[in-house]
Amino acid sequence: MSHNTFGHLFRVTTWGESHGPAIGCVIDGCPPRLPLSEADIQPWLDRRRPGQSKFTTQRQEPDQVRILSGVFEGATTGTPIALQIENVDQRSKDYGDIAQRFRPGHADLAYELKYGIRDYRGGGRSSARETASRVAAGAVARRILGAGVVIRGALTQIGPHAIDRTRWDWNATDDNPFFCPDTVTAGDWETYLGEVRKAGSSVGAVIEIVAEGAPPGLGAPIYGKLDADLAAALMGINAVKGVEIGAGFAAAALRGEDNADEMRMQDGEVVFSSNHAGGILGGISTGQPIVARFAVKPTSSIQTPRRSVDRLGNEVEVSTRGRHDPCVGIRAVPVGEAMMACVLADHLLRHRAQNPDAPDRPRLPRN
Amino acid sequence: MSHNTFGHLFRVTTWGESHGPAIGCVIDGCPPRLPLSEADIQPWLDRRRPGQSKFTTQRQEPDQVRILSGVFEGATTGTPIALQIENVDQRSKDYGDIAQRFRPGHADLAYELKYGIRDYRGGGRSSARETASRVAAGAVARRILGAGVVIRGALTQIGPHAIDRTRWDWNATDDNPFFCPDTVTAGDWETYLGEVRKAGSSVGAVIEIVAEGAPPGLGAPIYGKLDADLAAALMGINAVKGVEIGAGFAAAALRGEDNADEMRMQDGEVVFSSNHAGGILGGISTGQPIVARFAVKPTSSIQTPRRSVDRLGNEVEVSTRGRHDPCVGIRAVPVGEAMMACVLADHLLRHRAQNPDAPDRPRLPRN
Amino acid sequence: MSHNTFGHLFRVTTWGESHGPAIGCVIDGCPPRLPLSEADIQPWLDRRRPGQSKFTTQRQEPDQVRILSGVFEGATTGTPIALQIENVDQRSKDYGDIAQRFRPGHADLAYELKYGIRDYRGGGRSSARETASRVAAGAVARRILGAGVVIRGALTQIGPHAIDRTRWDWNATDDNPFFCPDTVTAGDWETYLGEVRKAGSSVGAVIEIVAEGAPPGLGAPIYGKLDADLAAALMGINAVKGVEIGAGFAAAALRGEDNADEMRMQDGEVVFSSNHAGGILGGISTGQPIVARFAVKPTSSIQTPRRSVDRLGNEVEVSTRGRHDPCVGIRAVPVGEAMMACVLADHLLRHRAQNPDAPDRPRLPRN
Amino acid sequence: MSHNTFGHLFRVTTWGESHGPAIGCVIDGCPPRLPLSEADIQPWLDRRRPGQSKFTTQRQEPDQVRILSGVFEGATTGTPIALQIENVDQRSKDYGDIAQRFRPGHADLAYELKYGIRDYRGGGRSSARETASRVAAGAVARRILGAGVVIRGALTQIGPHAIDRTRWDWNATDDNPFFCPDTVTAGDWETYLGEVRKAGSSVGAVIEIVAEGAPPGLGAPIYGKLDADLAAALMGINAVKGVEIGAGFAAAALRGEDNADEMRMQDGEVVFSSNHAGGILGGISTGQPIVARFAVKPTSSIQTPRRSVDRLGNEVEVSTRGRHDPCVGIRAVPVGEAMMACVLADHLLRHRAQNPDAPDRPRLPRN
Repeated sequence: MSHNTFGHLFRVTTWGESHGPAIGCVIDGCPPRLPLSEADIQPWLDRRRPGQSKFTTQRQEPDQVRILSGVFEGATTGTPIALQIENVDQRSKDYGDIAQRFRPGHADLAYELKYGIRDYRGGGRSSARETASRVAAGAVARRILGAGVVIRGALTQIGPHAIDRTRWDWNATDDNPFFCPDTVTAGDWETYLGEVRKAGSSVGAVIEIVAEGAPPGLGAPIYGKLDADLAAALMGINAVKGVEIGAGFAAAALRGEDNADEMRMQDGEVVFSSNHAGGILGGISTGQPIVARFAVKPTSSIQTPRRSVDRLGNEVEVSTRGRHDPCVGIRAVPVGEAMMACVLADHLLRHRAQNPDAPDRPRLPRN
Repeated sequence: MSHNTFGHLFRVTTWGESHGPAIGCVIDGCPPRLPLSEADIQPWLDRRRPGQSKFTTQRQEPDQVRILSGVFEGATTGTPIALQIENVDQRSKDYGDIAQRFRPGHADLAYELKYGIRDYRGGGRSSARETASRVAAGAVARRILGAGVVIRGALTQIGPHAIDRTRWDWNATDDNPFFCPDTVTAGDWETYLGEVRKAGSSVGAVIEIVAEGAPPGLGAPIYGKLDADLAAALMGINAVKGVEIGAGFAAAALRGEDNADEMRMQDGEVVFSSNHAGGILGGISTGQPIVARFAVKPTSSIQTPRRSVDRLGNEVEVSTRGRHDPCVGIRAVPVGEAMMACVLADHLLRHRAQNPDAPDRPRLPRN
Repeated sequence: MSHNTFGHLFRVTTWGESHGPAIGCVIDGCPPRLPLSEADIQPWLDRRRPGQSKFTTQRQEPDQVRILSGVFEGATTGTPIALQIENVDQRSKDYGDIAQRFRPGHADLAYELKYGIRDYRGGGRSSARETASRVAAGAVARRILGAGVVIRGALTQIGPHAIDRTRWDWNATDDNPFFCPDTVTAGDWETYLGEVRKAGSSVGAVIEIVAEGAPPGLGAPIYGKLDADLAAALMGINAVKGVEIGAGFAAAALRGEDNADEMRMQDGEVVFSSNHAGGILGGISTGQPIVARFAVKPTSSIQTPRRSVDRLGNEVEVSTRGRHDPCVGIRAVPVGEAMMACVLADHLLRHRAQNPDAPDRPRLPRN
Repeated sequence: MSHNTFGHLFRVTTWGESHGPAIGCVIDGCPPRLPLSEADIQPWLDRRRPGQSKFTTQRQEPDQVRILSGVFEGATTGTPIALQIENVDQRSKDYGDIAQRFRPGHADLAYELKYGIRDYRGGGRSSARETASRVAAGAVARRILGAGVVIRGALTQIGPHAIDRTRWDWNATDDNPFFCPDTVTAGDWETYLGEVRKAGSSVGAVIEIVAEGAPPGLGAPIYGKLDADLAAALMGINAVKGVEIGAGFAAAALRGEDNADEMRMQDGEVVFSSNHAGGILGGISTGQPIVARFAVKPTSSIQTPRRSVDRLGNEVEVSTRGRHDPCVGIRAVPVGEAMMACVLADHLLRHRAQNPDAPDRPRLPRN
């Protein structure tokens, strides 16, 4: 992953700023002859689209994707796929007051120190708007993975309020504005986040992404491990401060005999008694569900005034008035799914290149 | 990061198995005319070396590093630096019994499913022995960063027992076999880990790495963000299941006004009232200390029998008799430091290429 | 260089097909705060634009470039620069007859065998139309190199007719439709190529690119040598079959004492008595003019019927009626210049990263 | 290709200097379960080994290769293969006189200007000794390609004396010290090169590499084209100044109807009436033999005094007394073969990743 491209064989290069004319991406390395049209991509973008509830920014963007290359007569051709999304609802005046001031917790200062120039309108390149390109790329990645690989995400915590995992129901994630798999907690969140929003404040969140059906063997040890690439992909989403695989930080407290996922055989395949590993051992997928979790910090654009500095080095106070997500973690769910899809697609191609005869299920004996 | 190479400009390629004749790495992209000899690298390897207390594996390896290229008359030449460490104390007989069986929680099965072949002696390529090469590379990376960048690591939790952060003393990390910054807790760990060891069990741990003095501007958004590359680098260390930057997962529970690190000016530089960001905003360093934390799962080689399968698909029980670390997290401390050093060195070169006139401290106004 | 991206730090990713809605590229890694607008790019595109004389294809494309990102208030921001050029004059009916047949010498068959699908309209991705994106990227690369580096190209041979190098005049290249530096030969070519064109045939050409003012030290031995990267960049232009640096193939016939470029000192700088090396020794620039030459084969789309096969494996005859360049080498001149600019810009950044204190002229003693 | 690594999936990283303790390489991405031992690599090294006739340097190096990792019980494991060759016959005193002086035509000056330091002993990193590592890597690449792909090289010109291609006999290349496929010309060369050698001079050469049996579909347009990667790989060999594919520079003089390789069907496969394309169209292999040619300049280490400068900027004369190849092109033959093998192996893996169902022969219809 370097600069604005990620992936080694399935490569995604994104471009664009929050308030420029458009954003987009170029997807390189996609296998040919996969059916693909805008209709395959749009539903995923619609899930991420802002303005769909009062709990996300009120910016109204249709996020209509357009395929500009790489698809011919409804199928991919193996050449780069250029996707483009126009920016429609820029209100640059909203941001005029922060052109010279750095929001605490925001990338403003860092961009200034690195580049000495920044497109401050809506956060420019550092805006979460860029993640629409990731979601679009993720839709193409899903095509490569095929219907056998199911990637789903859920919000498992908002602020200090975690779900009750015993009530986990994937179907519930479509029935509330939070992608919450626990209907009861979703109701609590509605009240809680409403208060946060009215207070002009924000909170963080935790998201869990699960990929079922991925073949064993994905991952390129030692430095292209599947978990390492997932960690980079998820940590690289705006506002993310932590990433876990499987048991994650809780594994630190476990003893070896409790952490070990015991194995038995069933119909010629290895089955596991538990999944502390999150489907990855030694950086390589095992065929178990791949489980990743990431923490999103609270949006740094808040109405509460905070002490800061400006470009000239003056001490100032900053409060942000524009449209913002009270919990940016909500819309991070489809983004996390997309990053999982892209990483898996890349590793599927890499694995196939080196190990074309490897099994697609954890079958033993191998031959 | 792809396969066995990491870094974009400061590139490290490692090779070698636990019980092969040697392990090593090739470091490419190092600037010329830096003073370098084996004596600059050896002390870091000695910190990671096994067999120094009863809490690490009793394998006796001198880990003597040899520079084979890239250094002339005591200085780097800008050409690839080949480093080599001989394996001395292989006892392959220790591992004969696991040649055909997969240790639960270990990479054994994943390698078998991916490659259909594995060097099972001592874990082969998946052995933590590979991390010696990382530590050696880290020593070279420190040369690039210079004396102004101080990178230190500490163990902050073993099993369920975390340190008391109010007693944090960096100097203490050299005075106990755990790199523990809290002398009181270190004493408790001695008892606790002794019991774990005698029981033939293992536990996990949490490690914290802090880099002070790194310049602002490091990081290549969007997909080569400093925190994303750190996440990959740390997640790629053997047995790591989680990575955090700054407040990490705790950030999810915070509100925007509490998470924001407020800024003031002091002697022309930006200073912060807190460091929830862990020194990184928008994927770019700010000049604050860079703080990363990672969780290590318990060693999977334990004496307690666990249910598993063998290469032929038979259901078996596995218990490991050989020499092992009861808490592999201890020796992960110098490894984590090394990965931090390598990532920072790589980004320092990348940043310098694109932004040669950027300030090395968070100074405002910039010009 | 992998798939559709080239460059290591100055990275260009291009996309688009001949008859799709648009073509374009994403330029990543550009330093910030360089003045840039469409007006800086358009003149270079205009040089390559088809339909400007009867010796190039009559397709009428305005090749109007649009900057979609990475530039703010007239300056680069360090974030990816997306450039887009609409396709205006597609006449897909022209190509209907070759949808199923493979033109001998053309990429048609190879794409079919590799991908099993191809956008046959106008050659799709394999069309020379893609080179417009390279020219646009080259304009940005020139900004990085600065005014001190002058990159110029010339056509030195059409068919069997080479120029007389004693009449070389750079100014002449703007005064004829061939970028020919020898006015007399340009007149001969007019007659010769006119006949070729009327015959519905085509011919090859040789192009020479010279970069003056490039600093010494560019090139990353061993496998990122400046001449190796130039060779890839030029060989990767459509229809190119050979690349030379300096004396090129003629060097094979020389003896050591004749090939050696002798050195003297002048005003503290190394000066050379000749330039057989083409400005590159050991893969590294020396400060001399960098001289590269490449051969372009005759356009494979000709009216003379040739024996071929179709997608179903039937033996057929193919002759092409559409608009084509009788000598595609002419428009390869600005493309070659652009590739030289991109390679030099990439290596300038790479060199600066590793060797920030290297001299920008061949000065001795170095310090 | 970046710095000292080349290849995208089959990746080779080389290290080492002419007079250091050893040289070597790390081969990453090799598929598992390929039979491999030192005995598979040694014969290729022996072909390149110096001191086998009076027409190559008299340095005596056994070039004994040792496999240090990545092979277990006689087969590759999919993990990095470290190969090492000791330097045995360094006579550093031979080079003492050129420590401060730059040989015209040699990399000496360029390394000084770039790095400000160089290992001058035997040319250090810029020595052709590095090519032994390439040859070793090529042996592994041949294993990946399999016995069906035959890669052979021949010397076709020494100084101004080219072979008579009508007498081409591959078997002859083993019967003379020049890898010359034309026995008659080989005899002439013996006399000619003997005189050059005695005169303390040197001459250039042209080498041709042919790969037969490679499948169609290799090559990753637009910027990882097979011919572009071959051009880089061959131009990156020491002393190479030109690279051609197929008809090469001669194609410039051809007309379209003469250059077009006409196609017919034979047993369901496409056959061609000629091979001006050198087996590559649009950057993708067609199944025809892949033909590349490269020109090597005369060795710059000659006994005839040449005017030069030293590190301090003094004007001096330089003549080289040490052991050298009068025609370094001879030993470039196995190196060129190795580079061809490595590039094809890399592209075979890349092609397989994206197009697993593509045919391995140019069969039509495809499905």
